[in-house]
Amino acid sequence: MPRLRVEKITEGDLVLVFLSRDKTWLTKVTSGNLLHTHVGILDIGSLLGKQFGSKLKSTLGEEVWALKPIIHDLILKAERKTQIAYPKDMGLIALKTGLCPGLKVVEAGAGSGAMTMFLANMVRPEGHVYSYDIRPEFLSIVKRNLDKAGLSEYVTLKNADATEGLDVKSADIAIIDVGDPWSLVSPMKDALKGGGRVAALTPTVNQLEKFVVELVRNNFKLIESMEVLVRGIEARPNKTRPEMRMIGHTAYITTARKASP
Amino acid sequence: MPRLRVEKITEGDLVLVFLSRDKTWLTKVTSGNLLHTHVGILDIGSLLGKQFGSKLKSTLGEEVWALKPIIHDLILKAERKTQIAYPKDMGLIALKTGLCPGLKVVEAGAGSGAMTMFLANMVRPEGHVYSYDIRPEFLSIVKRNLDKAGLSEYVTLKNADATEGLDVKSADIAIIDVGDPWSLVSPMKDALKGGGRVAALTPTVNQLEKFVVELVRNNFKLIESMEVLVRGIEARPNKTRPEMRMIGHTAYITTARKASP
Amino acid sequence: MPRLRVEKITEGDLVLVFLSRDKTWLTKVTSGNLLHTHVGILDIGSLLGKQFGSKLKSTLGEEVWALKPIIHDLILKAERKTQIAYPKDMGLIALKTGLCPGLKVVEAGAGSGAMTMFLANMVRPEGHVYSYDIRPEFLSIVKRNLDKAGLSEYVTLKNADATEGLDVKSADIAIIDVGDPWSLVSPMKDALKGGGRVAALTPTVNQLEKFVVELVRNNFKLIESMEVLVRGIEARPNKTRPEMRMIGHTAYITTARKASP
Amino acid sequence: MPRLRVEKITEGDLVLVFLSRDKTWLTKVTSGNLLHTHVGILDIGSLLGKQFGSKLKSTLGEEVWALKPIIHDLILKAERKTQIAYPKDMGLIALKTGLCPGLKVVEAGAGSGAMTMFLANMVRPEGHVYSYDIRPEFLSIVKRNLDKAGLSEYVTLKNADATEGLDVKSADIAIIDVGDPWSLVSPMKDALKGGGRVAALTPTVNQLEKFVVELVRNNFKLIESMEVLVRGIEARPNKTRPEMRMIGHTAYITTARKASP
Repeated sequence: MPRLRVEKITEGDLVLVFLSRDKTWLTKVTSGNLLHTHVGILDIGSLLGKQFGSKLKSTLGEEVWALKPIIHDLILKAERKTQIAYPKDMGLIALKTGLCPGLKVVEAGAGSGAMTMFLANMVRPEGHVYSYDIRPEFLSIVKRNLDKAGLSEYVTLKNADATEGLDVKSADIAIIDVGDPWSLVSPMKDALKGGGRVAALTPTVNQLEKFVVELVRNNFKLIESMEVLVRGIEARPNKTRPEMRMIGHTAYITTARKASP
Repeated sequence: MPRLRVEKITEGDLVLVFLSRDKTWLTKVTSGNLLHTHVGILDIGSLLGKQFGSKLKSTLGEEVWALKPIIHDLILKAERKTQIAYPKDMGLIALKTGLCPGLKVVEAGAGSGAMTMFLANMVRPEGHVYSYDIRPEFLSIVKRNLDKAGLSEYVTLKNADATEGLDVKSADIAIIDVGDPWSLVSPMKDALKGGGRVAALTPTVNQLEKFVVELVRNNFKLIESMEVLVRGIEARPNKTRPEMRMIGHTAYITTARKASP
Repeated sequence: MPRLRVEKITEGDLVLVFLSRDKTWLTKVTSGNLLHTHVGILDIGSLLGKQFGSKLKSTLGEEVWALKPIIHDLILKAERKTQIAYPKDMGLIALKTGLCPGLKVVEAGAGSGAMTMFLANMVRPEGHVYSYDIRPEFLSIVKRNLDKAGLSEYVTLKNADATEGLDVKSADIAIIDVGDPWSLVSPMKDALKGGGRVAALTPTVNQLEKFVVELVRNNFKLIESMEVLVRGIEARPNKTRPEMRMIGHTAYITTARKASP
Repeated sequence: MPRLRVEKITEGDLVLVFLSRDKTWLTKVTSGNLLHTHVGILDIGSLLGKQFGSKLKSTLGEEVWALKPIIHDLILKAERKTQIAYPKDMGLIALKTGLCPGLKVVEAGAGSGAMTMFLANMVRPEGHVYSYDIRPEFLSIVKRNLDKAGLSEYVTLKNADATEGLDVKSADIAIIDVGDPWSLVSPMKDALKGGGRVAALTPTVNQLEKFVVELVRNNFKLIESMEVLVRGIEARPNKTRPEMRMIGHTAYITTARKASP
């Protein structure tokens, strides 16, 4: 993430090797790195000094492209323990919470760190993310994912039970992704500044309902619950149609704003 | 937008006055500002020195809350000439283009500046947005909207026909929101750095199809078209249900990445 | 409904007068019937002896067409006390319950009779619908709607509390559209033959959950819950796109099959 | 299909053997029929004289239920050559075309006969379906599927090119499911009575657009295009949520009504 304006690929850069929409690889560019694939061997090291977007030929003559990874790619390729990721939901959460550079964000339920990576990338370099999880084995994964993405310096990981209170104050945004989100409403309220935004991801509608009830009880305002459906479109000349399969559900999103006492 | 960490409301701050989800006002806090509403008069000036999220009582005894506006609020309250806005689509575009702080973004078709505001807020303070529109009357609106949001310094507006070429180079992201997006593929390709991302918003499926054909012809990779549906959920104890009405369509989103020559 | 094969319009026939997709009138063809509309007066009587689909000119020179009403038209034009109708859901219910000619159907919660009309039209002439409602004022509306549609002979209306048991046995299909559908699972089970199908419409997800729990407890099999979203498409040469507004929710549908004891 | 009111299972009846929502078998009840499954052998013959919905134990002690097959089951279990079926779309087509007992329906593009089965089951015993396909190998499949469902007497299959004209007149409904539906608008118009309804299934939006243009040119009225999305809901006590996967697209549906000349 760090060297935004550099266009030439240098030692240690990550590249997203693109063969097709369904077949990409994320790898690090180092001299001598040979990537073995079903379409032949790719000499990743030969990309050094080239521009992002450059073409590369495999030993079997197949063409691939070395794209610059964006955070979405890093999230999809991240190490993870849980199956479900929410890329489609992250965008709406960003919009509804006012996520932007410079903000202080607190997250409960780091999981494998997909959301953490997204948040950190959006608030850097001035902002910061404080991410809690009670499971140390998950935090290890988050740490590795953040390191790989070059985002560790913008995140503080905490192995603690967030329901017992957070040692973060005056946060702009609170993100909740745990099984009992209602138990975090009060601690998150304490952690947020007045007018701060909270967002929770809840797979079931029962969790959503209980969470909203708790938000109301805690005097949160502008409470909105919603779900996002993204449908792919196959565009081909004179044969354009939606994709036959789509994701029917990941989680509901609920957002709200803290009223001052 | 500028004073991120300040929690106290000061002269000149915008506040989102919240009565209910369907009734909010965006106003500037100045001493003596009296906001006349159907629930009575609100002494906005009395908010000076208070925290965001504070409660205010109208002359008729109604309670409202002075929330800190986020970019989403500013967009919804912005002056506009065109009816259609795409808040739900902005989040997905951010995700699929890798929008983040520090990037250089070029936009063709500023419209009323809703997307421009969103982009500027995400790339600041190091990044920059170059926004083109051939209609000077629209650029005036964009200018006023950016000024009000405190984002003008991060945007350069250009009253020019983007199809004739752009004087921006090495952009990270190109956003296209015009009626003939295909005519911008080649100019945007020149403006983007290798691996740069392009995104277009197309209301009709015919525009989408023609745009994708042109992307293929220009050797763009990882081409994806999709649409976003957001459905509201009414959460009430033991009576939770989706909202009866929803937006069926705004525009299709197509994203792709530039391959180097 | 009765004279299916007759193509000529005769005294007493209903016609759907079509001006545009958004403006249609349902009226009875009688000699001398003059329909006053915002596009002029229509001499409905002049349709006698003409074919369905015929054109008619208003006194102001506007052209309309006299279409043969289908049950969907009659439902949309029916007298009703409740706002919400479920035309989009009826088709799926028909499919999932095996609704077809000759079946015996029992319905709890006649409402304004929209579903009753649909059911009667599908099972006639050999089948029959038994429709319960505890509210006599609703049954009066249902009666008028069935009379107008010519479907009364296929329906028996019962002003009784269905939760106290039904005097129908060996029904093929049971349709439940009341606020507490779970209270009808046991009575409906008694009314159904082995392998019979039940379907319930539930606006809230809480109703759905409680209904399914009760189905499981009563040993129903092949339990499925779902929702239907229908989105309109505006097709115009080179400008085709989904409609901007759509119905986000009416009710969830749950279907299941009775296991014999 | 024939013996609607019979509740006891007799020789030759089809039963839907239900183990779980994801595992069912369609088989014919004959004395001595042993169904070998992964949960053991099922003595299907032992169902003779029992009620539909009865429980059966496999040799391994697993319990299954002998449900009465509805047309939806027969369609899902039908022999087919093409992958895509449209169960979710059939209901809406029935609603929008006024499909009901006694009607004369003409179908172009029988495919594997899924729609043909549905139509025949809805119009019988007085109505009739005329189904065209230019591919004799498909009509053989349709024939076998209709025979198995006991619906053959309500259908006339025609191995002919429908674009060259249909020898059916005064049809109430025309169903089009071919790759070039626009070429059938004129022949179908001739086959329909005034006020008759046409419906076409079109996988791509380009087909839809061309079909609608041709409908307009042929003076059809009340033209509507739409798509149906059905989403499953997993209902469990306190853990209710939409299903994670859903069908994103099968085909668009377009319906219209014939104006008389």
